[in-house]
Parts: sequence; structure tokens; C-alpha cells
Amino acid sequence: MTRNVEINDLVNFKGLKIVQNDNYFKASLDSILLPDFVNINSDYKRIIDFCSGNVPVPLVLSTKTKSVIYGVELQKEIYDLAKETIEINNLGNQIKILNMNVKDLVNEFETDSFDIVTCNPPYFKVSEGSNLNSDRIKTIARHEVEITLEDIIKVAKKLLKNNGDFYLIHRTERLMEIFELMRNNNIEPKRVRFIYPKENTDSNMVLIMGKKNGNPGLKMHYPLIVHNDDDTYTEEIMKIFGGRNDTKEL
Amino acid sequence: MTRNVEINDLVNFKGLKIVQNDNYFKASLDSILLPDFVNINSDYKRIIDFCSGNVPVPLVLSTKTKSVIYGVELQKEIYDLAKETIEINNLGNQIKILNMNVKDLVNEFETDSFDIVTCNPPYFKVSEGSNLNSDRIKTIARHEVEITLEDIIKVAKKLLKNNGDFYLIHRTERLMEIFELMRNNNIEPKRVRFIYPKENTDSNMVLIMGKKNGNPGLKMHYPLIVHNDDDTYTEEIMKIFGGRNDTKEL
Repeated sequence: MTRNVEINDLVNFKGLKIVQNDNYFKASLDSILLPDFVNINSDYKRIIDFCSGNVPVPLVLSTKTKSVIYGVELQKEIYDLAKETIEINNLGNQIKILNMNVKDLVNEFETDSFDIVTCNPPYFKVSEGSNLNSDRIKTIARHEVEITLEDIIKVAKKLLKNNGDFYLIHRTERLMEIFELMRNNNIEPKRVRFIYPKENTDSNMVLIMGKKNGNPGLKMHYPLIVHNDDDTYTEEIMKIFGGRNDTKEL
Repeated sequence: MTRNVEINDLVNFKGLKIVQNDNYFKASLDSILLPDFVNINSDYKRIIDFCSGNVPVPLVLSTKTKSVIYGVELQKEIYDLAKETIEINNLGNQIKILNMNVKDLVNEFETDSFDIVTCNPPYFKVSEGSNLNSDRIKTIARHEVEITLEDIIKVAKKLLKNNGDFYLIHRTERLMEIFELMRNNNIEPKRVRFIYPKENTDSNMVLIMGKKNGNPGLKMHYPLIVHNDDDTYTEEIMKIFGGRNDTKEL
């Protein structure tokens, strides 16, 4: 099989490159919007990203902090893309990628040890029918085959310090389940931003920040619109990208 | 005491009038937005509005259906304004107002007997400190003195038919609690619309529709912006009002 690898600019993030492979996994718009939503201050020393793919989330986070960022990717083929991505950006000292299932992290790290957990998880339940990809690698990246949202939130709860922040991007239609799972695991939803494909559409994606053992009280941010009516990206999306209209890989 | 009553147009709803009293209760923008959000089809024969005040919600609903609409108002002084409002609009055959606590409705109506319940409830918890109005009538209208959100949702659950619709407008900061209370009472949130005071602000109010025994799956509608930057109402609000810029009473 040909090694069908591309090296792309990660939009305009300070010259960051990302190693992609059409057969396996490409970074998505979602994986840029999630780290853009993250607030990091200099007290946040311990950060971990679950279901990291080819590490787009840690890459963007590395522009916001000097702290070490752990990434976790189960699939060896994608983990290898992540390794290459980290090397090509000379970020080996800041981004540490682990090749394991998020469920096993509780054996790897101490509980109550992280300030921030981020996750751009598989979006689809396996029971949601026949749309499973015939390709196993893509299937695992997109469907809850190897891990469910409940598993992810339970591990986040364990790894986060008291008052630590959990960041998630997910499909809006699953919002009720997300809120319930978070609250059942003592992660109180504190900030939410809905993403709309265009003006006057319904929201398809949502950004959520919850705080471990946080008090109730929700901030609902102004929504994020992705496309103009003519299908170009909106001004805000272009600003997130860094102002350059080089978005073919997203 | 002077009978400090005004009779105002209810914005531009087909000539509807509303009897107001500055000392007691005036219809708010929220009480127009809630019925605007309600979908009624001709199968919906039984409709009830909780915490009706001077009946703005039933008034607007009366423009959408021929079915009878019950209203419920605990406070005698406001109930009297509601009676006058119904009379002045000649809607005595369609809008029936009851002077009682919503909590007692389960003794008045059969369970599983309504297609739609609407409610623009008191927004503030009594425990939220010292902002209680010294005026008892306004305090009861705005704070959970005589009824809590949990009481309201429990009564809605009892009165609604299977698959009946519950409509609520409330403060966004209480969203988590609202969702949890609804789900704990088998009312599944199905449609949500956030209200923003202006562009690029956080949402302050939210419209919610839930279905008794409904399946999970949430539709997050495009947000509603109330004011333009120059503090005039937006085009969409003006359209809801009926296109006339006569909004002094809201």
C-alpha cells in the first residue's frame, strides 16, 4: 500500500504543520475550534487531550501555553502520524503522545492530577445503525467502538484536579446526554457555545466547558457561525484560523 | 389607593388589548416570546398556561388556535386584571382564568388531559438573597415564594398527555437545573432557543420545549437577538410584535 501521507499547514497557526493521511485520519474544523475555546492561564501546568488523532488539539494548545500537553491515541497508524507531526514541528519537549486507550489512563497517571482535559471524541453511537465505516480505522475514530462518551467523562473526572476544567466538542443532538453524564460525574457545565453551519440554521455542534466539583451557573456564549451564505468561512472562523484563507484541509 | 390601571395594546397582535397596573404586574417581552415559540396544530384541543399574570400568553395563543386556553393566576389582584383583559378582548369563550395556585391544579383537572402546558414562571430563587421586592405582589410574581420550578414541572408532568408539549421561558443561568428537572420528570427537552440581549453578548433568557415521554434528540434553534447595537428592537423582534414599533409597554 502506498504511504499516502500529506504534510499540511495547520491553517495559520504560527507555521504549524500537520501530517495527514486520507486513508486514516485528517484534522477537522472541530479540532481547531475546541482548543480555540480553551482558556489557559499560567497556573495550568498539567494538560491532557483524549482521542488526539494526529494531535491538532495539542498543536493549537501549544500556541497558548508553555506547559507540557499529553495526547492519547489508541490506533497505532494514527499514533504514528501524531509522532511525525510532533517531530516535524519540533514540539517533542512539549507534546507527549501515548499510544493507548483512554480507559487505561487511570493506570498511567495519578488521580486528581490534571488542570485541563480536552476531548474531540468519536461522535456516533455504535447502535446508531448501519453507517459504520467499512474501514476499521475510520470507524474507531468516528464511532464509539473502543470508548463511549460515558467512559471518557468517567476518566476525565478521575484525572482532573478539584476545580479542573473539562473541554468537549460534540454533536448538539447529544447535548442532553452530555449534560447528564457530566453532572452525574460531578463535572458542572459552566460555559457553552453552540456552533451553527450558517445563519438561520439549527446548531449541529457544541463546545462545552465543565468544572470538576464546580457550582451550578451556566454561561451561554454568543453562537459561532461557520459559513456565510455563499459557503465561504465567516470572518470569525477566519480570525480563528489566523486570517489566512488556506483551509483546504479542513 | 388610586386604581392605577392602564389599558394598552398588546403590541400589534390583531388589536388585542391588555389591562396593566404598574403597582402589580405588567406584561413583559418574555410573555410575548413564549407563545411565539409555541407550535399549535388543530389536534391540540386542551391548552393551559401556568402563572398567567394578566394573561399575555393566552392572548397571543388565542391568535394561533380556536381551542380553549386555561390560565392560572394565584394572586387575586392580578387575577382581576386578567379577568378585565379577557372581557375587554371579548375572549371569555376561549380564555378561562382560574384564581388558584398551580400546585392545586391536580385537584381541578384529570391527569394526562392536556396537549400543551406553557409557563412564564417566577425566575428567582428565594435563597438568591436580598433582592426580594418589598412589594409582596411583585415578589410573588418574580420569586419562587409560592411555587418553585420543580413544583411547576411536576404539575406539568401530571397534567400533560403522553407526548404532550411543555413550553417554558426562563433565565439561561438556570438551564442545567431546568434540564435536570425536566428529565427527572420524564419531560424530554426537544427544542431550545437561546435569547441574547444583543449581538456578541451572552444569552440571558432561553425558550424550551419538552415532550412528555419523548425520545432524546435535541433541536437547538438559531438564536434570537433582541436589540440592535443602537438599542432599537431587531427586525425579528419587530416581526414577532407584528411589525409596529409600538413597544413602550414591554
